[in-house]
Amino acid sequence: MTAALSANLTAAAAITEELVRSGVRHVVSCPGGRSAALAVAFATQPGLRDWVVTDERSAGFFALGMARELRAPVALACTSGTAAANLLPAVVEASRSEVPLVVLTADRPPEVRDFGAAQTIDQVRLYGSHVRWSADAPSPGEPGDLERYFRALVCRAVSVATGAPPGPVHLNLPMREPLVPAGALPVLPVTSGSRPAVRVARAATVPAPSDLALLAEIFTEERGVIVCGPRAGLGDVPGVVASLAARVGWPLLADPLSELRFRPETTTVQADGYDLVLRDEAFAAAHRPRAVLQVGALPVSKPLERLLAAARAPAHVLIASPGTWPDPLHVATTVVQADAAATLRGLLERAPARAHGAWWADWRTASEAVRSALDGRLACETRLFEGKVFGELLRAVPADTLMHVGNSMPVRDLDTFGAAGAARVDVAGNRGANGIDGVLSTALGAAAVGRRPVVLVVGDLSFLHDLGGLQIAARHRLSALVVVIDNDGGGVFSFLPQAGYGDVFERHFGTPHGLDLAPLAAAAGARVRRVRDWDAFHDAAARACAQPGLDVVVVPSDRALNATLHDEYVAAALARLRGAEVAA
Amino acid sequence: MTAALSANLTAAAAITEELVRSGVRHVVSCPGGRSAALAVAFATQPGLRDWVVTDERSAGFFALGMARELRAPVALACTSGTAAANLLPAVVEASRSEVPLVVLTADRPPEVRDFGAAQTIDQVRLYGSHVRWSADAPSPGEPGDLERYFRALVCRAVSVATGAPPGPVHLNLPMREPLVPAGALPVLPVTSGSRPAVRVARAATVPAPSDLALLAEIFTEERGVIVCGPRAGLGDVPGVVASLAARVGWPLLADPLSELRFRPETTTVQADGYDLVLRDEAFAAAHRPRAVLQVGALPVSKPLERLLAAARAPAHVLIASPGTWPDPLHVATTVVQADAAATLRGLLERAPARAHGAWWADWRTASEAVRSALDGRLACETRLFEGKVFGELLRAVPADTLMHVGNSMPVRDLDTFGAAGAARVDVAGNRGANGIDGVLSTALGAAAVGRRPVVLVVGDLSFLHDLGGLQIAARHRLSALVVVIDNDGGGVFSFLPQAGYGDVFERHFGTPHGLDLAPLAAAAGARVRRVRDWDAFHDAAARACAQPGLDVVVVPSDRALNATLHDEYVAAALARLRGAEVAA
Repeated sequence: MTAALSANLTAAAAITEELVRSGVRHVVSCPGGRSAALAVAFATQPGLRDWVVTDERSAGFFALGMARELRAPVALACTSGTAAANLLPAVVEASRSEVPLVVLTADRPPEVRDFGAAQTIDQVRLYGSHVRWSADAPSPGEPGDLERYFRALVCRAVSVATGAPPGPVHLNLPMREPLVPAGALPVLPVTSGSRPAVRVARAATVPAPSDLALLAEIFTEERGVIVCGPRAGLGDVPGVVASLAARVGWPLLADPLSELRFRPETTTVQADGYDLVLRDEAFAAAHRPRAVLQVGALPVSKPLERLLAAARAPAHVLIASPGTWPDPLHVATTVVQADAAATLRGLLERAPARAHGAWWADWRTASEAVRSALDGRLACETRLFEGKVFGELLRAVPADTLMHVGNSMPVRDLDTFGAAGAARVDVAGNRGANGIDGVLSTALGAAAVGRRPVVLVVGDLSFLHDLGGLQIAARHRLSALVVVIDNDGGGVFSFLPQAGYGDVFERHFGTPHGLDLAPLAAAAGARVRRVRDWDAFHDAAARACAQPGLDVVVVPSDRALNATLHDEYVAAALARLRGAEVAA
Repeated sequence: MTAALSANLTAAAAITEELVRSGVRHVVSCPGGRSAALAVAFATQPGLRDWVVTDERSAGFFALGMARELRAPVALACTSGTAAANLLPAVVEASRSEVPLVVLTADRPPEVRDFGAAQTIDQVRLYGSHVRWSADAPSPGEPGDLERYFRALVCRAVSVATGAPPGPVHLNLPMREPLVPAGALPVLPVTSGSRPAVRVARAATVPAPSDLALLAEIFTEERGVIVCGPRAGLGDVPGVVASLAARVGWPLLADPLSELRFRPETTTVQADGYDLVLRDEAFAAAHRPRAVLQVGALPVSKPLERLLAAARAPAHVLIASPGTWPDPLHVATTVVQADAAATLRGLLERAPARAHGAWWADWRTASEAVRSALDGRLACETRLFEGKVFGELLRAVPADTLMHVGNSMPVRDLDTFGAAGAARVDVAGNRGANGIDGVLSTALGAAAVGRRPVVLVVGDLSFLHDLGGLQIAARHRLSALVVVIDNDGGGVFSFLPQAGYGDVFERHFGTPHGLDLAPLAAAAGARVRRVRDWDAFHDAAARACAQPGLDVVVVPSDRALNATLHDEYVAAALARLRGAEVAA
């Protein structure tokens, strides 16, 4: 073995060992020459599962899905060049949705960068502001005690990735040739012990008691709401929020991705029909809150967004991760950058109990009215209306299923049509940047972890955007149910002003692809069924939940008809609301 | 129409009009809500062809392939969020391979950025050092004469994109709501005239006569070579280089992607077997050049790279685009940052004629020896050896075909096995960053332009990496022949030191996918044939060239067997070389 060679492998072994000792249990590794030493270390390091994925874009989202499901950092590695560029979409989503990723990009050494070398691009700070931290490491074999450096580097990277807020970090790792030795698989050095080279002691981000007392004054206002955005409900937040809402008599408006909507503890305090109720202008005008407790980012609901903007509540307390400020409406009057669960527990201790009055009753009654109108109508719906998919699925899937939803229409439909209490599931989605990219791979990342059944509901365009995900499922024999709402194009645009633009609409927004998704998915190794009615849908979903492997259930839909049906359902719900005894 | 609305469309119309007036004839547009005003302008602007592509990563490469084929700038537009992040791989490749792209990303306005708004990421300088220029525009409707601004902005962007060297530019375009008006398709304002708002007069980058006289002194050395890298042969360079080589008696070593290898003018001055010849250590040691004229980047050949590094020629003149310095070996003694064609013409005028001596004869004889050994063996080859594909294709395709080659093995095989004079074709590839991503989409971009037949040779992993490309072909009914060398994994790694790593090799480098590509490609709308022998291959290739539509011909191969056969061919060629009368 030459010295340079030994240095690459020694560094890779130290890096990998520290990843494991810092709590990383999974690495998603994309094949390449420059990263060969890392691949060898990943493959041979005890305690680490290495997932090989050939399409880096899908690999990034796959790692993201794993890390979100695990609530733990996942490593993601690739070779030099555009391979690294392909990771950007997932890095952006991880940054915005606060998911810890440790991205390792192999690179050429500095002396050939920007000198026209093959497969060499400027990878230094490649991900710009979209990583929490980045480092361009020296190359193994350079002078100095680099083994200590690499160990400290990894401990620090994992620490930043899992900090407050969590997110992606980027280690750029130049490697000189020869990259790995010829011959049999090298045996890498192993050090004894299991403690990381550097342990990180971290202070809790708990608000001061005096701050909590001040914050709790918000509850003197009766006309208040608790608004929970995507992933607000981590840890024991659902129970605390439920107690708080019940105590102060404020309705809980929980986004479908908040991990609060479909939890039994919150069912009785939610006004889960708010997305519909607030489309009624009279109700919205009469129910502007004067106090808002917002946990996390804004929910997806546009009517709720309009309400908060119009209300400009005199007290709008926003609890957010340190360094973030998720208030695009600029309506917050207090931002609490602290651990949400600790803050909410502190507020619960200090909140006064209030007898539930008209405010509470109005929200709950209105919400129940629209839910009952929808549910009654959906029960009789024989057409494959997209709005019925979630209700049917929530009934079909086992408890504790992870339901992953695509952006554009699926998350909106779940918001509108997904009733609290319908099932006990967790819901996840890429609501950091809301892309339609990488959705399948993200869901499969969660499935790969193997903790619970995973069901994905996704539109056809999003599905076609991520065929790399099907290849991951085939390679790693993953199990999941993927429901594809196939309306042959971009369904969300039918709800936008440009829907009347005729041919231009169809070409630039409707964008029908004309492909039959069933043989495509089948050729990529999935079991596929295209259903024609709800019986077939139930049958397919039930079968999929009962067997291992990837099942794709294609639900055909018509974009124009769906928009019409959607309008009819909303109209029916609002008619029921107006008939209910709600002050307006 | 509200004022904000009118402002978005007016700005989009002005932007689009200036694109056309500045010479942009094609725009690749990805669907999205924030970019709706741009889409309307693209769809209705005379003189512009709008190509809608739903996967932004593929869209980026598609635009790149178009712009490279056209040798003219192409616009590329998308909505906000990870959509923009998906363009990075193609932007990187465009930057490194000097292809002009005008990237337009719609964005949310500054007041909601970094405040947790939906589908909002930091898009300012998103592409970092990988664009020649970027601007974060004000939002239409802000005070000031923004129409003049947008017109000047576009003229400037196209000017930079088509400058020396050409490359991608990025315009980030925030748009406020309402984005477009409801109702029928709006009629956009049209201004009279066809001149751009700003015409750009550009100085020629011609070297000074005194510099040329100095440079020409290099030709006093007999032991010289002319080395031409990817895309060196633009314009009239092939003829000039051929005259120069013949005049001074220096062999031409032309990369397969140089656009010189397969041109009839250069056949008699090439030593086109250099990649094989230089594997003979004795020949390489005895034929180190003392003078090198390098045009453009380094060729792909590793043996040639080793020769140049070992030679450290006392005179190594590198002609490169202004601002670039493609010399990773750090062996150049003079860098000429000027127009290559003008420089070469100037050198030809000043070069002394030399009778061709032993130096010339050695290179030509050696090259002919290895070529004849390979060609003889290939003629009898009945197995589907990957090295035979290019020879067969070069015979089968019409003259002036654009042959696009994938990275990893295809470009290397073309180098080794592709004889000068075999056909009159141009060869293209993504040799800026050498990624395996986006290859299909790039080739289809060239095909979309419709100038000439397009044939792509690509490996299975690269093909699977870019299934988005198949969707482009289906949507736009494009015609091309795609030959997929299917060795079920990463063939190039079998030639690397890690080939002996057993299971770890297979999992991390071999990476078999186990998918049958034929039904997959068929489901995505291609005509597919998996061939079992050369007769079937010829038949399939001939049919494909004679009919419109996308034809995929799958050539099955075995990675291990292919590596063995490859070694045998090289050994046979070197044995013939040693038997030839070449000084060593």
